Amino acid sequence: MNEADFIARLRGIATDPAARGLADDTALLGDLVLTHDMIVEGVHFLPDDTPQDIAWKLVAVNLSDLAAKGAAPLGVLLGYSLSGDAAWDAAFVAGLDDVLRRFDVPLLGGDTVRPPAGAPRSFGLTAIGRAPATGAPARGGVRPGDQIWVTGTIGNAGVGLAMRLGEIEPGATCMAAYSRPLPQLALGAALAPHVHAMMDISDGLLIDAERMAAASDCQIALMLEAVPLSAALLAVRPDVLDTRLAAATAGDDYQLLFAADPAQAEAIRSLAATEGIAVTAIGHAAVGAGLRLTHRAQRVALPERLGFAH
Amino acid sequence: MNEADFIARLRGIATDPAARGLADDTALLGDLVLTHDMIVEGVHFLPDDTPQDIAWKLVAVNLSDLAAKGAAPLGVLLGYSLSGDAAWDAAFVAGLDDVLRRFDVPLLGGDTVRPPAGAPRSFGLTAIGRAPATGAPARGGVRPGDQIWVTGTIGNAGVGLAMRLGEIEPGATCMAAYSRPLPQLALGAALAPHVHAMMDISDGLLIDAERMAAASDCQIALMLEAVPLSAALLAVRPDVLDTRLAAATAGDDYQLLFAADPAQAEAIRSLAATEGIAVTAIGHAAVGAGLRLTHRAQRVALPERLGFAH
Repeated sequence: MNEADFIARLRGIATDPAARGLADDTALLGDLVLTHDMIVEGVHFLPDDTPQDIAWKLVAVNLSDLAAKGAAPLGVLLGYSLSGDAAWDAAFVAGLDDVLRRFDVPLLGGDTVRPPAGAPRSFGLTAIGRAPATGAPARGGVRPGDQIWVTGTIGNAGVGLAMRLGEIEPGATCMAAYSRPLPQLALGAALAPHVHAMMDISDGLLIDAERMAAASDCQIALMLEAVPLSAALLAVRPDVLDTRLAAATAGDDYQLLFAADPAQAEAIRSLAATEGIAVTAIGHAAVGAGLRLTHRAQRVALPERLGFAH
Repeated sequence: MNEADFIARLRGIATDPAARGLADDTALLGDLVLTHDMIVEGVHFLPDDTPQDIAWKLVAVNLSDLAAKGAAPLGVLLGYSLSGDAAWDAAFVAGLDDVLRRFDVPLLGGDTVRPPAGAPRSFGLTAIGRAPATGAPARGGVRPGDQIWVTGTIGNAGVGLAMRLGEIEPGATCMAAYSRPLPQLALGAALAPHVHAMMDISDGLLIDAERMAAASDCQIALMLEAVPLSAALLAVRPDVLDTRLAAATAGDDYQLLFAADPAQAEAIRSLAATEGIAVTAIGHAAVGAGLRLTHRAQRVALPERLGFAH
């Protein structure tokens, strides 16, 4: 059974409205937004990633889910598996302190277990946030005619992972995007009242856009040439279709993907400028289903792999 | 680094009042009580325990933490590691559905990961509850002069585990106590306004009472002859000091341990009678520190192992 099959089964028992059909990465309980993400050695991080980077990623991926709902973080609960290496565990706590201070989020509690020797490292985090007064945008709210936007640039973390694996020369910007993703909390909160739908890009722009289209029962058409790539990425990759498809399927971006009425474009640009983060319209929603890709007005077939499917 | 050392380090960074110094198994956020517990194969359950029983235990241990705060469950988030065995995963979902229906708690969300092949099974659950209007009793509120009470009977699960391991003839009551613990939600909610301190007994009566004494900066004196043992336990074990020490250190009871003014005794007995669950006064709190044990008025030295220290 893969993740999708398992979640389909869980959906059958998660009938409470607060679960949002398990389609939204987060749950809503009153005005609280709740999310729980796990990261596992060899799946979500490399065995020799530093404990500080792993702590950062564990917190950042969960806060990114809150950011996508426009929520202000209230605290986290940590599920920690002792590593059997005291110095490693101590470095993890130091890294955890660092990332929690950086985003001003308190550690509220959790649980610590000692797994059998040799088990892969595995960590969980529950993050709790307060939804914006205007409500938490769902993944499934896209309406035909909406513009589709992303924050920041796409694909840096994928290049950073290649650098981390020694496949290409290291560069600071992409390496940092891989090891120290920045959840877009302030921008997410600012955008929330202006969007119809919002989610974070964790598994890849294309796979996450496809999920947004499915949850919204509409089609999303993306112009690959509009997908924002960083100067750091374009310094090591040529600006060709393959580069753009690789960036759009690499995952680990932790940027926001959102849909809004075109009349909101000016407000959205202005809010993003205030936060000092780029926003780019990369397509639109239409009546229909699934994902539709073009590159410089030419139709592009969907790649077999749209992103990181667990 | 063991669990206690790691938690001591975490305590250094968990300075928010809502964390209650990480001394309480749960966190408080407004009127919400939050808890996150993990269970790991080979540590908290046996490799051949059924997926239904494991799902039950995962939910029950977390709801038991809510029960100890008098909280009414609002929902849970599941952290699931796919087993690589579709039938096993499907049976887990069926068991999860069963236990969530039994306690009327909705599944709100969570995360699913696929760990590397051969990794021990590991699951996490976050449970969210609403604190009672009178406030959630802390672990550290015991006052000298308080009576110390437990709900139900102690030691059944420990005997059930021995039965499960084939060490003694199986018996239904103790086996069920091991595989299907019952969080004392209704009684916990009823007792909360009447107690000074409350916690659940997960690692063993003695180790948990010692933790309560330490958190409360007082001494707890327990009369081992008063510790309530079930008829099912006494059918397979003689009523001698060793049996009582084994029961009081076995863990997995998920009964409530609480402290209250002796003037509350009648109210407490009456509430317990209404719920149909026994409550037993097993000792008292005094000025001092640590745990003090007696058996039929004879002082008993603390056993080396007070319970299940992870």
